[in-house]
This record gives sequence, C-alpha cells and structure tokens, in this order.
Amino acid sequence: MKGEEARTIAGIVLKASELVLLCHVDPDGDAIGSLLGLGLALKAAGRRVSMVSPDGIPPSYAFLPGVDEVERTIGELGDATVVIVLDCGDLDRVGALREKVAGHPLILNIDHHPTNGGFGRYNLVDPQAAATAELVLLLLDYLELPLSLPVAICLYTGLHTDTGGFRYENTSPQVHRAAERLLKVGVKPWEIADFVYDTKPLAQVLLIKEALSRLKLGCAGRLAWISLPRSVLRDCGTDDTSGLINYPRMIAGVEVALLFKETEEGTVRVGLRSRHVDVSRLALRFGGGGHARAAGCTLAGPLEKAEEIMIKAAEQVLEEELAGE
Amino acid sequence: MKGEEARTIAGIVLKASELVLLCHVDPDGDAIGSLLGLGLALKAAGRRVSMVSPDGIPPSYAFLPGVDEVERTIGELGDATVVIVLDCGDLDRVGALREKVAGHPLILNIDHHPTNGGFGRYNLVDPQAAATAELVLLLLDYLELPLSLPVAICLYTGLHTDTGGFRYENTSPQVHRAAERLLKVGVKPWEIADFVYDTKPLAQVLLIKEALSRLKLGCAGRLAWISLPRSVLRDCGTDDTSGLINYPRMIAGVEVALLFKETEEGTVRVGLRSRHVDVSRLALRFGGGGHARAAGCTLAGPLEKAEEIMIKAAEQVLEEELAGE
Repeated sequence: MKGEEARTIAGIVLKASELVLLCHVDPDGDAIGSLLGLGLALKAAGRRVSMVSPDGIPPSYAFLPGVDEVERTIGELGDATVVIVLDCGDLDRVGALREKVAGHPLILNIDHHPTNGGFGRYNLVDPQAAATAELVLLLLDYLELPLSLPVAICLYTGLHTDTGGFRYENTSPQVHRAAERLLKVGVKPWEIADFVYDTKPLAQVLLIKEALSRLKLGCAGRLAWISLPRSVLRDCGTDDTSGLINYPRMIAGVEVALLFKETEEGTVRVGLRSRHVDVSRLALRFGGGGHARAAGCTLAGPLEKAEEIMIKAAEQVLEEELAGE
Repeated sequence: MKGEEARTIAGIVLKASELVLLCHVDPDGDAIGSLLGLGLALKAAGRRVSMVSPDGIPPSYAFLPGVDEVERTIGELGDATVVIVLDCGDLDRVGALREKVAGHPLILNIDHHPTNGGFGRYNLVDPQAAATAELVLLLLDYLELPLSLPVAICLYTGLHTDTGGFRYENTSPQVHRAAERLLKVGVKPWEIADFVYDTKPLAQVLLIKEALSRLKLGCAGRLAWISLPRSVLRDCGTDDTSGLINYPRMIAGVEVALLFKETEEGTVRVGLRSRHVDVSRLALRFGGGGHARAAGCTLAGPLEKAEEIMIKAAEQVLEEELAGE
C-alpha cells in the first residue's frame, strides 16, 4: 500500500493544531467507521478534533463508540485547520458542506475509490484498498498511535461492511491480515454483525414478505423479477429496498434478476443482476449503466408498462445468449 | 494450537501405505471441505487415499474440486490401513459406516467439537479451532505438503461456513490468519460465497415467502414467531427450514424468536433464539436444550396446541425479565 503517501499525511497531521474530519453524505459503515476510527485515535492522543458526518449516524451504526461526539456541520475554518476528507471519491460527496471546505488550503484526501482524482492538497488514495478503514489503519501505524478497542471496533466495521462480510471481490489477503490485527485488540465480530446485519426494522421484514409475494419467473426459470408499486412501499412504511434483489437472484437456475421500484415521481427504478450475462448493456440501452453482473436504469412509468418493456428486452438477451452458446 | 498432536498424527500419516478419510453424515461445509482438503493434498503427494462421505456431497458443495473422487462407502479395511475421521464429535457421527471402522486399530481423530472424547488411537482435537479445516491446515504444515489452490479452496470453504462467514463467536484472530494464507494461494471468496450462500432452490425461496406470511408478534413486539404446518412444507416441496428463524429474530425490538415446525410424525420441533434472555432454560423445561441464545426442543402436537403452550411460556419468561430489570 501507499507507504510514502501515508508518511506525508502523518507528518501533516502531527503538526496540525486543529483537525476537522469529514465523511460523505448517506454514510455507510466504512464512512462512519473510518471517521470514528481516525477521530477517536487522534482525540485519545490529545488532539483537537471535530468529527463531522453531514447526514449524521444511520441507526445501524448507532452502537459504535464515539457517535455522540459526531457533528453534522462545521464552523468557520481557520487557515491552519487541517481538513481530512474520508471515503469520498470526489469533494461533491460531502454534500452541502462542500462550499465550506472547497478551496481550503489544507485538505487531506483519504479514500479507496478508483474514480478519485486526488482533490486534496495531499492524497492517500489507493483503489487496491478494500475499504478506507484499511488506509486509516495504515495511517495510524505511521502516526505511531496505539490501536485501542474503540478504534479497532470502528475500523473493523468499515472493513466488514465494505467487503460484504469478507465476500466481495475486494477481499484481499491484506484485508484478512488487518482483520486479524483488529481482532487481537479484542473486537468481537459477532456483536458487530448483530447490530449491522441482524437487526432490521419490522417494516423491512414486512417488505421482504410483500416482495416475495410478487416474485415472478420467466424464460423457463432463467429470469426472475419483483415489481414494487408505490402503494406497497407506503403500506410497509419503508422506502429501503436494498437487498431485495438478492431473492430473485439467489434462485437456482436464474440467470438474470430484476427489481422494479416505482418512485414517488412515478418513474421506475430498475435494478439488474446476473450470473454470467452482461446486464450493463441492457441497462445502457435504457440510459442506465453499471457493471456486467450488477447494473441499474430508470424507465418512465407506469410500472406495468416499464415492467413489460424491460422483461421483453431481458428475455431477448437471454434467448440470444442461449442461441450463442 | 495442538502442535504436539499434529506432529504425532503427521508421523503416522507419513508411514501409512493406505489411507481412508471419512466425514460425518449430513455433512456441512467443514466436513466436506476438510475431507477434500486433506484428501487432495495427500493424493497430490502420491498417497493411496480414499475420501468417503457417507451421505455424499450436498448440492451447495458440488462445485468443490475433487468431489467426483468422493465415495459413499468403504471396502474391507486392512490392518495397516490408517482411517482418519474428520469433524466427528464421536464415532457414531459416521452413521452406518461405524460398524466397519469401530475397533479398527489405526483410527486418527481430527475434530474441533468440545464434546469430542478422543475416540481415536491418536487424536488431534482442539475445541479452540473454529473449524476442522483449521486443524487440517495445521496438519498439512507438519506433513510439509504444499498448499495447492484446490486444497486451499476446500479448506477456505470449511473455515467460511463454520464461522458463518467470519461472524460467529468462534471467529478468532487465527481464523483470519488462516484465511489470509488461503487467499494468498489464490482462493476467490466471492466465487465460493456465490455457490454456498447465494444459490437456493426455488422451493426454499417460496418457503421464505410462506414463512413470512405466517409471522406473528406478541409481548409488545418483544416476541416474534413463525409456525409452519406440514402442509406448507409439502406444498413448497422442501423440508429445509434452516435460516428461517433469522427473520423473526432480526426484527428490531424482538427479544425472543421462535420457529415451530410440524414434523412428519406430528410432533412439533421448536427453535428458540434470543438477544439476551436465556432461552435454553425454556427449552430445557420441555425436554430440550442448547445455548443461552440458541436452543431447541420438541413438543407433542397438534401444532396449534404446541404453539399456544410455548408462546405462553415465552411470554412469562419475558415478563419475568422485564420485572427483574
């Protein structure tokens, strides 16, 4: 990893009289975990630190140590204040706080997104890192700060969530080595998993039920989809459809899975997943995009019409694929 | 871990002219992964090895290298044949093959179950190991056998499944160190997860739907349960209810979750989960047992009656707990 960059950043941090740490809007486990992990380590070392999450702390991460010290906004920045932006592919990701920090002379950019163009005065950006938390761990080594249990819990949460529980393609040997270090400090993965994954609002479980009752199959079992009208989301009391596409996707024999979600504006968000077929081409045809096995696009409503158009297109792709074999 | 025992076992294996490897009935990922991991490593070293799984290979593990070489039974054992029993808490776990191996002078017992009494002539038993695959990895080091990619895939599968994807309480720093080693050989966790976790028969997904439509809540949202009549399991075409109890369990605010399953014999299997309350006491009262947060018992039918009795008992436990706070 980026030892030189980490050494430079550590040098700036050690000289700073005041630090403002900032993560992105709509924060995930890595954003919050990296923010708190670095923030708590610096505070424990007696540094003047503000930890800022523009959208606050999502309920799943309210268990993390230090959340009560996280603020939603920042005050006037002194010229000597060091601003550390964490887990942001570009500076727009800090949302409305952008105007407060853009142009500031001392922005440090710590991130792992491949699209990161290096917007900081100094940058510790490594797309090979599975999570920003992995880079924070590296930085703590260069800062020669001890790894306390609260800090380890935060960094482990970042590592675990950004690798989907050590399952995604970014799970490298280094990720496991970092996890080993964090567990040695005393992190209990089962407690973190219980908070982060194994607790859902009742509304969410009811939505799984509604979604499954709308499961449809086509193309001799090679296509499966779920279509969610606005009324269902309203009745369940949640708009969070994350993870639902896994149900059609996981069915043995299903090659392409789709999730249709009617938005408040009446358009239809379509999520596409596949095992082998390139669904990004399908999404692209409707003005969307993504990866070969996970893509998305938005169609005009009404829901039934969007469903009909997309299913027809997906069937065609599957038939072409069969013919090409 | 058990270096002395591993060294002894390695010595026996190195001198053996013929080896029979055996795992338990109803095999899980660790049983199959350990069987294949050790078997393939020994075969690659030119040893005469039989790999035996009394119940064959479950569909989820059919992707593993070497499965075509696994047999379901064993022939006549020569006195000099070394029998290695893997992942079995006691010898009964090999099922009907017990009568073929019981009394054999050269049984090696490699296992991590705390209840293992040491039924082998030599034993490599370590309850601190998260998976038998972890002990096989140790043994391979003492055998000085190279870690090939096929062997690493099998051992990683054992490690991943027995720790619930690095989430259960047995996830130690050593588990992550072992995972790091296996990934360095080239294991791709995302491919394994796709086979093991992310592919389910349609029947299984339909059963989730049926189960969720039977979800009930009580005790002001602190109790949640699902009751599955025989007819539902029959209609869905599956008897596999594993994982279903996670749905009532994951609901925010739920302290005790129950799953009632009518068996073919008309009795009712009850699974119990909790966040803090000790449900093993509840299970014990009905002749069952288990751990504080995961227990089970069997009640007499009919289903409605068993449900009524158990819900009343669970409500009482929850009320006592509230009063005791």
